[in-house]
Amino acid sequence: MIGAGNVATHLGVELQKNGCHIVQVYSRTQESASALAGALSVPYTTSLANVCCDADIYMVALTDAAFQEQLPYIIKGREEALFVHTAGSLPMSIWEGKVARHGVFYPMQTFSKQRKVDFTEVSFFVEASGSAELALLKGLAGLLSPKVYEATSEQRKYLHLSAVFACNFANHMYALSAYLLKQNHLPFESMLPLIDETARKVHELSPKDAQTGPAVRQDWNVMSAHLDLLAEEPDVRELYEKISESIRQLKGQ
Amino acid sequence: MIGAGNVATHLGVELQKNGCHIVQVYSRTQESASALAGALSVPYTTSLANVCCDADIYMVALTDAAFQEQLPYIIKGREEALFVHTAGSLPMSIWEGKVARHGVFYPMQTFSKQRKVDFTEVSFFVEASGSAELALLKGLAGLLSPKVYEATSEQRKYLHLSAVFACNFANHMYALSAYLLKQNHLPFESMLPLIDETARKVHELSPKDAQTGPAVRQDWNVMSAHLDLLAEEPDVRELYEKISESIRQLKGQ
Repeated sequence: MIGAGNVATHLGVELQKNGCHIVQVYSRTQESASALAGALSVPYTTSLANVCCDADIYMVALTDAAFQEQLPYIIKGREEALFVHTAGSLPMSIWEGKVARHGVFYPMQTFSKQRKVDFTEVSFFVEASGSAELALLKGLAGLLSPKVYEATSEQRKYLHLSAVFACNFANHMYALSAYLLKQNHLPFESMLPLIDETARKVHELSPKDAQTGPAVRQDWNVMSAHLDLLAEEPDVRELYEKISESIRQLKGQ
Repeated sequence: MIGAGNVATHLGVELQKNGCHIVQVYSRTQESASALAGALSVPYTTSLANVCCDADIYMVALTDAAFQEQLPYIIKGREEALFVHTAGSLPMSIWEGKVARHGVFYPMQTFSKQRKVDFTEVSFFVEASGSAELALLKGLAGLLSPKVYEATSEQRKYLHLSAVFACNFANHMYALSAYLLKQNHLPFESMLPLIDETARKVHELSPKDAQTGPAVRQDWNVMSAHLDLLAEEPDVRELYEKISESIRQLKGQ
């Protein structure tokens, strides 16, 4: 396992739990490497030169920048193995011309170290250099989840971008809500039923049809009162305006 | 019930189911008035002059603009009754000097006509002109949900603003995700596990601590690739930039 961040940690633990033999953990930082290696009871290293050479699969879960920088050292002396990365954002072509057997093993989920993930609810998108590698990655993902799909690098780019909106940006809307509540000494907990229902609704209705609130109603009285409340928060105020305008535009389409 | 939109419909049906006697439905539009009146098996009118004068409570669930415009006609000849509105955005003072007994009955939830709401999961925020009215509204809300809180008009303004972020704006992030997926012939359903997990996470972690993704990691490679993918969508691109910047700012606080 090359990397010991949120994705590597959750995947490593879950793969091991499902019978995979994790050989070793690599991370640049001692703290992360030893934490994951400890959880898995396997050795670790903080030097790519000391990564074992006899693993069947090298699974890379690094930030994109670290990955691209370290790629030559990850493969060096291990060119016969199968290399995969877990990032939704990087194309499979990053491996081309470097190692023959390669692929992508992208779990589309939000991983936080502090929180357990139910892998049976995670969609996996896989892609591989050949049919044998594809079958292997599908089988590996299939150990963890029934939701295993093939996706090309082009499709995965848009999946990842869409996931940033549906997950990271939606979470930031929660965060801004929490921020405004805190400033007014109100509990964020009171929002949880609303957050849950908002998520549940889009299982039945398209998000566009599920939209409610002042922006989609074009209730200018309410919107202008809200902008007044945000007078001291110019950046949040600007976001309120832009998102409301975007809701209006999407409604018209 | 003055109004027959999403809020009036869900509240009316649920109040009746819990033993309240709904006397009559008013809405400006025949279609909405007759639909809700049909669901409740009660008479309706599209003229405020024909609203009955002997109800104990007049519950107003109109858009803010319609409410303010129609307020004089809503109370005329009925000044002895208890008047409440369901809007989170309007202060209780809107009734002051007009009717003695008044209050606010704000269910903080997102209501769509097509979807059933579990009222036991709805937070109600109530406020009233006097202690008898407050007790009555608490009792009424208590018929529907165990989550009944008092909130001043000032607090409710911020609750409502925060709810717009946590619900309407979060839903718009889903909508933009769906839009991008559709343009690339990918199914929105693949996002549902991610959306669910994002909502579940903030029951355990603060949204700020729960944040993942390129913006909070400051992964410029990924962000710049995403901005390139959005080259043909300048408005969505701008939102991507502004929200990513807002995530960065909040992380630093």
